[in-house]
Amino acid sequence: MQTVSQFQEIIKNHFEALQINKEPKNLYEPIAYILSLGGKRMRPVLTLMAAEIFNASCEKAISAATAVEVFHNFSLIHDDIMDDAPLRRGNQTVHEKWDVNTGILSGDAMLILAYQFFESYEPQIFQQLAKLFSKTALEVCEGQQYDVDFETRDDVTIPEYLKMIEYKTAVLVGAAMKMGAIVAETSNENANLIYDFGLNLGIAFQLQDDYLDAFGDPETFGKQVGGDIIENKKTYLFLKALEFSKADDKEQLLHLFSIQPTDNTNKIASVKEIFVSSGAANATQDAIKSYTLKAFDTLEKMEISDEKKMVLKVFGEKLMNRNV
Amino acid sequence: MQTVSQFQEIIKNHFEALQINKEPKNLYEPIAYILSLGGKRMRPVLTLMAAEIFNASCEKAISAATAVEVFHNFSLIHDDIMDDAPLRRGNQTVHEKWDVNTGILSGDAMLILAYQFFESYEPQIFQQLAKLFSKTALEVCEGQQYDVDFETRDDVTIPEYLKMIEYKTAVLVGAAMKMGAIVAETSNENANLIYDFGLNLGIAFQLQDDYLDAFGDPETFGKQVGGDIIENKKTYLFLKALEFSKADDKEQLLHLFSIQPTDNTNKIASVKEIFVSSGAANATQDAIKSYTLKAFDTLEKMEISDEKKMVLKVFGEKLMNRNV
Repeated sequence: MQTVSQFQEIIKNHFEALQINKEPKNLYEPIAYILSLGGKRMRPVLTLMAAEIFNASCEKAISAATAVEVFHNFSLIHDDIMDDAPLRRGNQTVHEKWDVNTGILSGDAMLILAYQFFESYEPQIFQQLAKLFSKTALEVCEGQQYDVDFETRDDVTIPEYLKMIEYKTAVLVGAAMKMGAIVAETSNENANLIYDFGLNLGIAFQLQDDYLDAFGDPETFGKQVGGDIIENKKTYLFLKALEFSKADDKEQLLHLFSIQPTDNTNKIASVKEIFVSSGAANATQDAIKSYTLKAFDTLEKMEISDEKKMVLKVFGEKLMNRNV
Repeated sequence: MQTVSQFQEIIKNHFEALQINKEPKNLYEPIAYILSLGGKRMRPVLTLMAAEIFNASCEKAISAATAVEVFHNFSLIHDDIMDDAPLRRGNQTVHEKWDVNTGILSGDAMLILAYQFFESYEPQIFQQLAKLFSKTALEVCEGQQYDVDFETRDDVTIPEYLKMIEYKTAVLVGAAMKMGAIVAETSNENANLIYDFGLNLGIAFQLQDDYLDAFGDPETFGKQVGGDIIENKKTYLFLKALEFSKADDKEQLLHLFSIQPTDNTNKIASVKEIFVSSGAANATQDAIKSYTLKAFDTLEKMEISDEKKMVLKVFGEKLMNRNV
């Protein structure tokens, strides 16, 4: 088995060799641009890793891995338009560097390109990959819509929130891994188990993102600590705090999530205090552990060597310790 | 063979029975809305017609026909955002009725849904359909980008313009027909010939649209006569007039296409005069005839009965006489 950084190197080289810059330039340059910004490219890494787990080569899986990463970047371009985000990976977003129309159309082209990367596979594999991809892509759209809807709702439940992060984030992690399994032509059972592994790890990762947004180390957490609190975002922490708090704290929390002060220092401190005192912080950590264990449990059922189970477990642990 | 209006009826009933209204509502309602606006649904009609030409039933072709129509409506939603268009088929556009973000995301979902409609076919057919669909969809994006680019260019050539309308409009007509051929499992040669038939008829139709925009009967032409002139759109008529005009008329035409008067009556009259006197109007009619004949020529090479060739020819003639 290769290491994560070896997989990353393979993917980096593959993307550098891709001939994206075709005509018309205004359509393809933004695509080449967003793909050049890189990032950790964890999703295509997972496709390659899953393929190797089930005894297929990286060469065989690289097209599926490319499709996953191109789709992910399509969703970033369109999400950034919807969020009016100026920056992505420390650089200008596509709609900022060009304009909204360019972002829409280049994003559309990327979604189509993603499907084209499956064309190198034979019909049976192609259909399995394309079906999984369409199902997943539609769920990602649904997750994004739920996320948008939640902004203006004040009755979001925990199950609804979990479904939103599952669709918006975790299904693509599961699908990325299952694509590696499909390419490797392993059993349906193995393919479904690795999907569940990725899905549950993806949910755990997103919940941890919520947690670290409030309680992370500003030195190591990639984003601004307190960002969700500043934006009044209804995360797992917030919803659990609402559930657990008594009337006074609940009222205070709802008030804090209705204001947008110029200086957020006090707001962040007060919210974090309620997150802790209500038990929401602990409940979130419990949920993270629970989803991580659920992921690891699926490993037991997989028909692969113990060595390979260990590879996936170590990867999962590193990911949750944010050491990948 | 069934008639065009019988095919339209089949498609109408099929779309009415489609279960589009799923959750989240804000994602799927705009999809159901745009699909309910109807229109002539000429593209899916062509898929069904081509399937029957090559001896397959409508039932077998209806999923592919649905994919084509859903894709077409996806492109309408995103194009209407880019053009900031308030109306579509006499009703509010999606981004007007909801908002731009809804239009982007619902459009994305429709592009994915289009692929899903191919899933009912067996792997070999599925792959052929999905490959043709991806190639076509990407060309439509490229055509849209060329169209946008041309707005700010003053050196657009006739071959560039023809390529733009081919990509933006005609390839989907060709692909719609070829999908019927693929579903019917006819020879590759027949499939490619019906693609060329649709492609050339599509180009002829679009050139005729340019012509009728200036010279059409306001009673029967669906859009505002003179609309392209008001918008200073560089159509085939305009580009040919520039090519054929002497210095004085050329200068006058360029001036007319740089102004936006409140009352366009005189502008339209002057432009039309140059279109006629320069010979551009005649040249456009010649081009329309030439592409129509090119379409009809491909019929001769097709391995189908003379009766079926006649069906396609009569359809083509009706389409070009705008009697469909």
